[in-house]
Amino acid sequence: MTQIINKPKDTVSQVLNGVAFIHQEKLVRIKDTGIIKKKNNETDCVALISGGGSGHEPAHFGYVGSGMLSASVSGPIFIPPKTSDILEAIKQVATPRGVLLIIKNFEADVSNFLEAEKQAKMSGILVDHVIVNDDCSIEEGSYKKRRRGVAGTIFVHKILGAAARDGLSLTELKELGEEVILATNTLGVALESGKTIGSEKAIFELEKGQISYGIGIHGESGYREEPFYSSEYLANELINKLLIQYDHGHSTSFAVMINGLGATTIMEQYIFANDVKRLLQLEDIEVVFQKSGNFMTSTNMAGISLTFLEVKKESWLNYLKEKTDAFAW
Amino acid sequence: MTQIINKPKDTVSQVLNGVAFIHQEKLVRIKDTGIIKKKNNETDCVALISGGGSGHEPAHFGYVGSGMLSASVSGPIFIPPKTSDILEAIKQVATPRGVLLIIKNFEADVSNFLEAEKQAKMSGILVDHVIVNDDCSIEEGSYKKRRRGVAGTIFVHKILGAAARDGLSLTELKELGEEVILATNTLGVALESGKTIGSEKAIFELEKGQISYGIGIHGESGYREEPFYSSEYLANELINKLLIQYDHGHSTSFAVMINGLGATTIMEQYIFANDVKRLLQLEDIEVVFQKSGNFMTSTNMAGISLTFLEVKKESWLNYLKEKTDAFAW
Repeated sequence: MTQIINKPKDTVSQVLNGVAFIHQEKLVRIKDTGIIKKKNNETDCVALISGGGSGHEPAHFGYVGSGMLSASVSGPIFIPPKTSDILEAIKQVATPRGVLLIIKNFEADVSNFLEAEKQAKMSGILVDHVIVNDDCSIEEGSYKKRRRGVAGTIFVHKILGAAARDGLSLTELKELGEEVILATNTLGVALESGKTIGSEKAIFELEKGQISYGIGIHGESGYREEPFYSSEYLANELINKLLIQYDHGHSTSFAVMINGLGATTIMEQYIFANDVKRLLQLEDIEVVFQKSGNFMTSTNMAGISLTFLEVKKESWLNYLKEKTDAFAW
Repeated sequence: MTQIINKPKDTVSQVLNGVAFIHQEKLVRIKDTGIIKKKNNETDCVALISGGGSGHEPAHFGYVGSGMLSASVSGPIFIPPKTSDILEAIKQVATPRGVLLIIKNFEADVSNFLEAEKQAKMSGILVDHVIVNDDCSIEEGSYKKRRRGVAGTIFVHKILGAAARDGLSLTELKELGEEVILATNTLGVALESGKTIGSEKAIFELEKGQISYGIGIHGESGYREEPFYSSEYLANELINKLLIQYDHGHSTSFAVMINGLGATTIMEQYIFANDVKRLLQLEDIEVVFQKSGNFMTSTNMAGISLTFLEVKKESWLNYLKEKTDAFAW
């Protein structure tokens, strides 16, 4: 598929310049870096930073705004941002109350973010981090594999962002973040591979009519391939697999996110949302918050992910519902 | 490409149920119809209604909200809504101040909307309409072909919606709408055909590496096919073709919309946005308002459209900037 780009090597830089143009009232790009930050940063709250490789737009720059992130850091496509860019982002938004890094659980991401944290601490900045690992596609018997950070990361951005604006300390935010992460699970399926920008090659191969359960946002292989039957069948499979992660002994309230992976139409997303709704009703599970859209993509992969967050405290729901001007929420 | 659907015949109904689920705090579906309306409608303003065939999501239900539409009406995929559904929508949202229909300029759409308007008037409701025809892809020498209504329709929704909330009368809104429509031009290109939901067939054929200029949102053929060179080249071609529509004798302020047609990634949209910005700067054209995203799609077509609105009055810009809770704006 032809792609609307110029020289492939200029891609990420031109994307970030485009973001700064379209959202010029609220966002700025720090020149020659992968950093997008708020034009006006609050100085009396803990600042939140997230980021990762490009190819997952609108993550993460779409979540920079009042009540969410203070800055995002983009790396090359599917490659984490450089330590020096992360460090620069920390310096750009640091406040006396500190900086919290929200890191998706991929080895190279964790490594670069923690190195930047170490260096920032050495220059006297108060920094801490949480690591999001909501992907529960790892099958039993393969526990050595890492639970990755995927679409659930956006719920973490929203809750911690609202809580930071509400005045929570760095320690409180880290603790809240870890509680929310424990309560968050995501499972995704691919219907067709995307293509990385600047390449004609599919990221992975999938036979026509087959879908791959548990695929990662960089095309990491899933746990099962089988024919696609229907949206309802798919919703049922994902819901069952997600519910295993939760204790059924008590009544449960969930926040639900349906996330398109890039090329899946809005029609399909809502059809799937309707199936999720009906099936959760049958399970007597109350949905207290729900979103559907393209939140964490994998270039133009066709596919969808489903995220459940067990809302354990009323305050979490309030944080989810509070207003933000981040453009992709 | 496998699609996340159930029985194809249930598609639109399930989509609308999904919309009503995800946006339950603000929107409701009128059962057994294609109508999505605001949960709480103002009764002291003119009500706005738009709609059309499905396959263009988030148009138009994504624009139902305070300061935009009062209701949207969806037909089957690429087929306009039934007259009876449009009439029911008019009855559902009518206020003493009247109802304005915003119609995209396709023959069957215009026919059904005007028939519903006629019937509503017979039952004593104050109704009028505007017809949006922003697509300027029609080449010289083929003026018999109709200028279609495409992405520029969303600017019309926004300006008229804010103006209606501001208290303008039905007559004033119609007049304002016609002025705005005259100042709006859109040009789109396709890089790859989408597929209609429930069908494996491409809507049109396009050779690999070729792009089609001036294609319609239902795959109507464009005015030229040529190889794709670069985002910058494409932006230049579209800008030049759009500027021909405007009088260059005076300085010009534009509102600009970059619209993804379905499968075009957010990265590509921002790269293109960056090129548009640079090229307009060279032309000394001031961009006073800018948006980028998927506003009016054609299922999962890969492609993009560019809309210019010459902002002739300060009030238009204020209407564009006013807040709305419509989820897709």
